[in-house]
Amino acid sequence: MSMVNRKGLVVRKIQRADGALVKEFAHFGVATVHEAQQRQGLLDKRVRPIQQGVTVTGSAVTVLVSPGDNWMFHVAVEQCQPDDVLLVAPTSDCHDGFFGDLLATSLKARGVVALVGDIGIRDSQTLREMNFPVWSRAVYAQGTVKETLGSVNIPLICAGQLVYPGDIVVADDDGVVVVPRADADAVAQAARQRVANEESKRVRLASGELGLDIYQMREQLAEKGLRYLDSLDDLQKLSS
Amino acid sequence: MSMVNRKGLVVRKIQRADGALVKEFAHFGVATVHEAQQRQGLLDKRVRPIQQGVTVTGSAVTVLVSPGDNWMFHVAVEQCQPDDVLLVAPTSDCHDGFFGDLLATSLKARGVVALVGDIGIRDSQTLREMNFPVWSRAVYAQGTVKETLGSVNIPLICAGQLVYPGDIVVADDDGVVVVPRADADAVAQAARQRVANEESKRVRLASGELGLDIYQMREQLAEKGLRYLDSLDDLQKLSS
Amino acid sequence: MSMVNRKGLVVRKIQRADGALVKEFAHFGVATVHEAQQRQGLLDKRVRPIQQGVTVTGSAVTVLVSPGDNWMFHVAVEQCQPDDVLLVAPTSDCHDGFFGDLLATSLKARGVVALVGDIGIRDSQTLREMNFPVWSRAVYAQGTVKETLGSVNIPLICAGQLVYPGDIVVADDDGVVVVPRADADAVAQAARQRVANEESKRVRLASGELGLDIYQMREQLAEKGLRYLDSLDDLQKLSS
Amino acid sequence: MSMVNRKGLVVRKIQRADGALVKEFAHFGVATVHEAQQRQGLLDKRVRPIQQGVTVTGSAVTVLVSPGDNWMFHVAVEQCQPDDVLLVAPTSDCHDGFFGDLLATSLKARGVVALVGDIGIRDSQTLREMNFPVWSRAVYAQGTVKETLGSVNIPLICAGQLVYPGDIVVADDDGVVVVPRADADAVAQAARQRVANEESKRVRLASGELGLDIYQMREQLAEKGLRYLDSLDDLQKLSS
Amino acid sequence: MSMVNRKGLVVRKIQRADGALVKEFAHFGVATVHEAQQRQGLLDKRVRPIQQGVTVTGSAVTVLVSPGDNWMFHVAVEQCQPDDVLLVAPTSDCHDGFFGDLLATSLKARGVVALVGDIGIRDSQTLREMNFPVWSRAVYAQGTVKETLGSVNIPLICAGQLVYPGDIVVADDDGVVVVPRADADAVAQAARQRVANEESKRVRLASGELGLDIYQMREQLAEKGLRYLDSLDDLQKLSS
Amino acid sequence: MSMVNRKGLVVRKIQRADGALVKEFAHFGVATVHEAQQRQGLLDKRVRPIQQGVTVTGSAVTVLVSPGDNWMFHVAVEQCQPDDVLLVAPTSDCHDGFFGDLLATSLKARGVVALVGDIGIRDSQTLREMNFPVWSRAVYAQGTVKETLGSVNIPLICAGQLVYPGDIVVADDDGVVVVPRADADAVAQAARQRVANEESKRVRLASGELGLDIYQMREQLAEKGLRYLDSLDDLQKLSS
Repeated sequence: MSMVNRKGLVVRKIQRADGALVKEFAHFGVATVHEAQQRQGLLDKRVRPIQQGVTVTGSAVTVLVSPGDNWMFHVAVEQCQPDDVLLVAPTSDCHDGFFGDLLATSLKARGVVALVGDIGIRDSQTLREMNFPVWSRAVYAQGTVKETLGSVNIPLICAGQLVYPGDIVVADDDGVVVVPRADADAVAQAARQRVANEESKRVRLASGELGLDIYQMREQLAEKGLRYLDSLDDLQKLSS
Repeated sequence: MSMVNRKGLVVRKIQRADGALVKEFAHFGVATVHEAQQRQGLLDKRVRPIQQGVTVTGSAVTVLVSPGDNWMFHVAVEQCQPDDVLLVAPTSDCHDGFFGDLLATSLKARGVVALVGDIGIRDSQTLREMNFPVWSRAVYAQGTVKETLGSVNIPLICAGQLVYPGDIVVADDDGVVVVPRADADAVAQAARQRVANEESKRVRLASGELGLDIYQMREQLAEKGLRYLDSLDDLQKLSS
Repeated sequence: MSMVNRKGLVVRKIQRADGALVKEFAHFGVATVHEAQQRQGLLDKRVRPIQQGVTVTGSAVTVLVSPGDNWMFHVAVEQCQPDDVLLVAPTSDCHDGFFGDLLATSLKARGVVALVGDIGIRDSQTLREMNFPVWSRAVYAQGTVKETLGSVNIPLICAGQLVYPGDIVVADDDGVVVVPRADADAVAQAARQRVANEESKRVRLASGELGLDIYQMREQLAEKGLRYLDSLDDLQKLSS
Repeated sequence: MSMVNRKGLVVRKIQRADGALVKEFAHFGVATVHEAQQRQGLLDKRVRPIQQGVTVTGSAVTVLVSPGDNWMFHVAVEQCQPDDVLLVAPTSDCHDGFFGDLLATSLKARGVVALVGDIGIRDSQTLREMNFPVWSRAVYAQGTVKETLGSVNIPLICAGQLVYPGDIVVADDDGVVVVPRADADAVAQAARQRVANEESKRVRLASGELGLDIYQMREQLAEKGLRYLDSLDDLQKLSS
Repeated sequence: MSMVNRKGLVVRKIQRADGALVKEFAHFGVATVHEAQQRQGLLDKRVRPIQQGVTVTGSAVTVLVSPGDNWMFHVAVEQCQPDDVLLVAPTSDCHDGFFGDLLATSLKARGVVALVGDIGIRDSQTLREMNFPVWSRAVYAQGTVKETLGSVNIPLICAGQLVYPGDIVVADDDGVVVVPRADADAVAQAARQRVANEESKRVRLASGELGLDIYQMREQLAEKGLRYLDSLDDLQKLSS
Repeated sequence: MSMVNRKGLVVRKIQRADGALVKEFAHFGVATVHEAQQRQGLLDKRVRPIQQGVTVTGSAVTVLVSPGDNWMFHVAVEQCQPDDVLLVAPTSDCHDGFFGDLLATSLKARGVVALVGDIGIRDSQTLREMNFPVWSRAVYAQGTVKETLGSVNIPLICAGQLVYPGDIVVADDDGVVVVPRADADAVAQAARQRVANEESKRVRLASGELGLDIYQMREQLAEKGLRYLDSLDDLQKLSS
């Protein structure tokens, strides 16, 4: 759709994944979902939580904004349903404070569970007090204007990842991962197996068993040429 | 005063705003003051709090330092009064730990309420335990020397903003804003109105009313050309 | 040892400093140790704690890893003893999440007290819940592979500092400092004196005595040319 | 295709745009194509040319690489045709020198016209002497290994833009823009009009006519509230 | 003037320094002017030339722009005279390509000698071919809009320095320095002396005389405690 | 030597590698030397040339400086011989312009061939005109003082690499690599072989032979699981 001007469009009806399934993703956490999804869908590391210890999951309502302009947030609120995540990308890099406590109040009233944006936000302390979780690239009081159209619920690239409206967003202290709606079942299945598998590993590791043995790495390492030396003196002999 | 060497000067008497007025700014918070002041006076986003959930306000005692040299802090302490904020700018970028718990002890003894600096600081955990709030560009243990003069209570540029001694400094989790002393009354008045106005908006938004309606944006958006589509399918039709 | 390929080597026996001495360093904190050591050994400021208010100290088990490859962590675990700190450097800049809760479980089982790395880590919330402290350059869920050899317990440069296995690592909210094992006694001695000296200073400063007087700076400042002006008006007269 | 492991795949046959059309894009330059395409498709500003004054255009052969691993370049060479551009994205941020003069020699032998990558490259001086143009995020001698699979000719995100194999890549001193193959005709048409339009504007502007008049901006500016003051004195009166 | 909305204002008449004096600054270069001005007025290092080997000087016409909006450039052109420099600051960080060859054509037609901006620019190759010199923080094709008012010829802070319209701007490969109009004579005088002094030093240094002797540093260095050792062996003895 | 204050020391006599051998390194270039040395000794990528197309090699005279203080440069000049490279590291990050054309004149008079520093420099255009090559982390006119001692010819860490006085420094457009003096012969020998080997590869690659065949990679790639698909359609089938 590149040749269409992507600004000035609002898509009203989007498809969302099954609610129970979406909620299950919160149990996996970002690192596990990222692995279960073949290490795909991870937003750039610059998008960070403003709170600690919170995991959320929801369906993406996407918002494209112009730098320094938060007009489209108000348009987006109307398109939101309970358990949605507002996911925001600017058309060009901007750290301004696009989002604050009034918009959070409005989103909360509609049941939206979080904001994820490759943008700056403000009123960060109030947002924490409201228990409205946010992942952003900056906390900065810099104000924005309402002059230029953006779009709502169009596919967009946010922090290096392609996101469709209705995709599942999972966010915790490690960052944010996006799961395409069509893959939700398969990724959840893979994540469940991964969690089960990790649990048994965790017990063995906690008891002192070594990963070298659990994962049977010793032979491979030797094949690659790993050498054990007795001391730093032996290391220096290698050099001379 | 550019042709004067700005180093090696200490101005003893500065004018400060009315104490009750200064304290009122803490109720507004940085984002509101920044808006009330026509979006001016905000320090660069690199100056961040080392603690969470603390808002301070006070009169600026300004300090100009050389990179890696914290000698002038001791000169500055003597110029401080209760409810001052020490506001520090280096003559050239530096992340060193210019400030730590001993200097904070000295400032606290004089009633200074915070340090704001476009510099690094150290002893961060002790500073938090002492309840001495700090906004800085880095937390870093790197030591400094005492070799080169700077100045105290001269006008300077800190993190992109011109600050005069006696200006009002407001700092919270969103950053730091500076209000010229002469504007304090007018900005406070505008901030009060803004807070009142926001409160009524918050109630309406919390009840589920939309910003689109409260702010009567629908017509303007339509004039600018905002279009509503029924689904992503309609979006793809636009492209073909 | 430059001409030796530094990858693929594991040194089994390293010398560690006396345990009681190592533990004492936790009482000093990073800023004090850095000063006691003539301002040397401080890791670059990019290596930051993922938790707040924790100080650790231990003997370095060093790990050299390839970008995006965490295979050597498993090799390193086997070389660890109680009270060790795993200290990790990549051969080239990388923010990937090399380390997570399973590896932390394994390290904890061996008594390792912390991870310090010029790398990214993940599972940050779980790590905090486990009380396994970490200093890293990024928190990022990005996964790594196990394809390329690195080394364990060789001397390496981590975040700008040369570290030998067995060196003492001290880490707190201000960053990380490394003390060469051979210097441990002397640095501890200097740190003890520094702490004692600071304590008496703290009492005097808290009582309102000025650093200018305690450190007898007034004369030196005057010699360097520090001038006191009565007001900003005098400052402007200088310029005209 | 998210649930498929995207590594280890090579797509042999891709569709390319008409050669004459592709070449025409070099006449437009990046800024014009970006505008003609409704301001879409621009790679992040971190991807910069290593030479000056060169514009290239070609069909994208896409390469996905692991951090610090350049194995897939050799696989990609075989898939290239004359007038292709090799476009490379890593699965995770990496500044290593993935590409140098030997690979450039190999690409040149197949008629490839440029490398564009969100990666580091090396042998930069030799590349300039060979007249093999490169756009990269870093110039750095750091070597890479050949251990981990990536993929060739799969759709990928490079420096914030979704790129399909066969898309048209345009690169000059202003950066890099990607045009979807299906849009090539329409974008070229819009670019031609833009160039023609700009040419007439350039003549008028060069003769001293003002943009304010050519674009008839005066009325709009007045409506928005633009005010003309006679001097800085009038400005100060506004403030008092 | 903080409480005035600084947007939407154009000051028509500004005072400029004497033309011959302004031109003389080009002979000094940025480093010398910065020193002659007591190391003040230097823009942040992020503002860099897009060409090499060009020095310009002129009177500042200042422009305040909103992020991603270049409307005010057209307003500013009308306020320019021969030998002016357009100096642009955004109200919030932005790397977009605000400025290109059409605007340069317009500025050239009015005799403007350069653009200096804490912004991005585009059409960089054409700008070099036109011999229109530019100092900017980024070269990036990203387009901008014309929606929001800024201001022309008001005092502003650009890349960390306060600039008044009519101030003298000097720019070369080392960066950009601003000289207040009122100080122009005094700074020029100091720069002339500095150049003369440097010339004699250059001759002596070129002949092999040492700075240690020319500047008579040996005694001071000894007083500070500088020690000469015969070899690295002596250095190691110090440590043991 | 950590417990010794490393500031205030000058080592007069250092050992240098054989002059003919040192000069030969210029023929290899940085990337080749880095590889020949097992991918070690490369300075961080932030140290970049201020000129293009120049390769230098020489013996390191090391200088440790305080942030914003260039006093030790004058001390260092006296310790230099023809064909030395001055290699400078600050005790803490600093981008100031420590070095300019007067110091370059002095170094040139002693036959020094280049400056390499993890610092800022100025007078960049004059330095290029003088043909005095420089590698630095910034070009910035910001002045420095002469107040604090550093050291000359002590071992130090520069941009992430340990450097001893007398080590061989090789610098070109790809960055800077340091070869320990003791390894010079062995590294040169390995580099010669590498160059010879690359030359034959270059001829074969230029003739159109594929790296896949020259390096016999096809089997390994297949073993790792590389799959060839006929088209993007096949790729989509994998996903469904």
